[in-house]
Amino acid sequence: MKKNRPLGPLFADLYELTMAAGYFAHRMAAPATFSLFIRGYPPNRNYFVAAGLQDALQELESSRFTADDIDYLKKLDLFSDEFLTYLRSFRFTGSVTALPEGTLFFADEPIAEVTAPLIEAQVFETFLLNTIGFQTMIASKAARCVHAAAGRPLIDFSLRRTQGRDAGLKVARSTYLAGFNGTSNVLAGQTYGIPVSGTMAHSFVQAFEGDYAAFAAFADVFPGHSVFLIDTYDTRDGARQAVRVAEEMKKTGHIPAGVRLDSGDMAELSRQVRRILDAAGLQEVKIFASSGFDEYKIAKAIGDGARIDAFGVGTNVGVSADAPFVDIVYKLVRTDGRDVRKLSPGKKTLAGEKQVFRETDSNGQFLRDAIGCRRERFDTGEPLLQTVMRDGRTVDTFPTLEQIRDRFADQFERLPERYKTLDAAEKYPVAVTADLEKLQQTL
Amino acid sequence: MKKNRPLGPLFADLYELTMAAGYFAHRMAAPATFSLFIRGYPPNRNYFVAAGLQDALQELESSRFTADDIDYLKKLDLFSDEFLTYLRSFRFTGSVTALPEGTLFFADEPIAEVTAPLIEAQVFETFLLNTIGFQTMIASKAARCVHAAAGRPLIDFSLRRTQGRDAGLKVARSTYLAGFNGTSNVLAGQTYGIPVSGTMAHSFVQAFEGDYAAFAAFADVFPGHSVFLIDTYDTRDGARQAVRVAEEMKKTGHIPAGVRLDSGDMAELSRQVRRILDAAGLQEVKIFASSGFDEYKIAKAIGDGARIDAFGVGTNVGVSADAPFVDIVYKLVRTDGRDVRKLSPGKKTLAGEKQVFRETDSNGQFLRDAIGCRRERFDTGEPLLQTVMRDGRTVDTFPTLEQIRDRFADQFERLPERYKTLDAAEKYPVAVTADLEKLQQTL
Repeated sequence: MKKNRPLGPLFADLYELTMAAGYFAHRMAAPATFSLFIRGYPPNRNYFVAAGLQDALQELESSRFTADDIDYLKKLDLFSDEFLTYLRSFRFTGSVTALPEGTLFFADEPIAEVTAPLIEAQVFETFLLNTIGFQTMIASKAARCVHAAAGRPLIDFSLRRTQGRDAGLKVARSTYLAGFNGTSNVLAGQTYGIPVSGTMAHSFVQAFEGDYAAFAAFADVFPGHSVFLIDTYDTRDGARQAVRVAEEMKKTGHIPAGVRLDSGDMAELSRQVRRILDAAGLQEVKIFASSGFDEYKIAKAIGDGARIDAFGVGTNVGVSADAPFVDIVYKLVRTDGRDVRKLSPGKKTLAGEKQVFRETDSNGQFLRDAIGCRRERFDTGEPLLQTVMRDGRTVDTFPTLEQIRDRFADQFERLPERYKTLDAAEKYPVAVTADLEKLQQTL
Repeated sequence: MKKNRPLGPLFADLYELTMAAGYFAHRMAAPATFSLFIRGYPPNRNYFVAAGLQDALQELESSRFTADDIDYLKKLDLFSDEFLTYLRSFRFTGSVTALPEGTLFFADEPIAEVTAPLIEAQVFETFLLNTIGFQTMIASKAARCVHAAAGRPLIDFSLRRTQGRDAGLKVARSTYLAGFNGTSNVLAGQTYGIPVSGTMAHSFVQAFEGDYAAFAAFADVFPGHSVFLIDTYDTRDGARQAVRVAEEMKKTGHIPAGVRLDSGDMAELSRQVRRILDAAGLQEVKIFASSGFDEYKIAKAIGDGARIDAFGVGTNVGVSADAPFVDIVYKLVRTDGRDVRKLSPGKKTLAGEKQVFRETDSNGQFLRDAIGCRRERFDTGEPLLQTVMRDGRTVDTFPTLEQIRDRFADQFERLPERYKTLDAAEKYPVAVTADLEKLQQTL
């Protein structure tokens, strides 16, 4: 696996640095704790899937101001020489508790808490929100698709319309950990070891003057990996041309792996194509479909009786189109020995360092969660936040992406079906413990 | 300005490479032309602002398969040794025509056309769609905000919730070229030379046990650059604490640059805060506001009589929340001397290499566009697509970001107001020339 080059601490809103300069000038170096959480649910959402922690921790470990960075900051003519000198040897020395990647969690529950000297904890705010927020949002969207597909494989096809380059990579990783089976994104395949797939676009068919010539040419080069795109001109005719080529492939002991539909009425066309393939004895040839799918459209196609064996899922999931951001925040909850909170309208926060406790039934099914104080004894539930960084160093080796994927699959099985509906009709119960409630009252 | 490290040609859907292998095996090396355009408008959109070309051309120039890339592809067990050997010396040798960055354009008009040996033009499809599509979408969204703000400055505050790291940088650049005045994103400031701004978050106020102590501490460090965030506890009280600190600052010849509102009813609170500041003789202290603004909310606040001098614009613009993708496509229009098109339902394309002609009135105001054949003579309009790359090399030095911003400002002034409404009620007229229409009929 390739490692990211550190972004460096300039990946930040300027106010992180002006605040840091203020703390520096006033010698405020006592430890502070910030809590990272998502305020409420986006429309139709009911759960989140934690993702992005590995990127976050690697950046915290390795982030340094370079000489160029210091020169740039100096030119802004905002910062004192003393502060800039301090930044030259700045590094993150704090600790982090977090939900392991692949953990299911719910609104208002901390995904991570960062404890460090105030400046160090402050400077990484923007970075942590961005990195964990985006990957968590995509993993959560992907989980909805996986549930809607009810066992049918899903492939990430979103790279062409993700919001930039980094997003393309992160979407491949986040969808895979939530149960997708692969990606079209070759760089993600190389970077993360995710299985890659893809065969042909309409341009290939056009370059060969028609379905038959294009399919035959492709089968010639990839006899074991041919999926023919059959809708360039007419889907049913395309299916018939695929059958012609399949007959010829049989002579050398091959058949196409599948055909792909990319436009039109998916339920109806897939049934027609299935009949054409079956009539030719090509029951083993799969039907792939890839036209604007997301969890809603997958559920509808299956409900309409589509004969689709696997879905290519693109733009709508790659940008989480129906909810393209989460209201993720990073809030100061304790500083210099004081628990603190904010009272702005609609933006209240709970003071104090926290833990999330999850109660399960005798079959391991999730019953309810409670947000409590980090150090309280809460007997009816397993604590979910783990110490993942101490003194600026990650505590353990990172789990592999496959291990994260397995963790998520296990957790998702334990979430009762009634919380998995696409309209999020029923909310999973999350309480605040008596101890944490009492702490709020004392402030 | 920092230069991007090349992404390399693995930033692609796998099918770009399997198609390339197909073309290679069948010795299809004749030139092909692909046209990059946006199919129709997202909801409420009426125009687009071209952005992303510099990134695109730099990547085309420098993109190479590394030895690691070749090793990875070999392990996929899909490609012949001959093809992998070919990839070792692969580079883009073609030509590109494109709209210069900052150009206003409309649905279905080519943003760029790429002509190169078929494999070279194909392999970069995914990358070009991603890079130009995202930046164009954000620049277009930003232009709507600039228009709604009617001269009030806008600052990009989106970094914490952009879709990944690259998106954060590109949003800063794309919003700036469309008329934003700066960004909170320090890395974008360093990378692109965009003015940066930002002062304090709620955590700063909390760390100091209250508004007064926090504002005084900040003013002490940044007497010439203080914007006090006044809504941590109560906005009106926060304004009064800002006044107290301002009185003290006056003794050393300073006043705060401004105060910032970040929650609540912006129109009403801004009027109340303006009265508090004015009553204290602080007419020069500006009011900044930053709570979920986009073009709709900016227009509403101004319509409601808000006394806001400048807006911080974040998430809703940084992810283009109401329309988080554009239907950008890259379609084969000519190959091996043949003009080609695709007939899939809802996805028809116009065959042939193209030019866009723009007709203006005697005052330079845009009247209408026509999409025509690249080589036709069309007397009533200025051709917009320019040759920007030839034989794999960019033709000219790149314009500066300031020049691009000026180009956009000039173009936007020339677009009649009736096409700038937020509901996009009236569409700008774009015709197809008789020559291009005739070409379609002959196929």
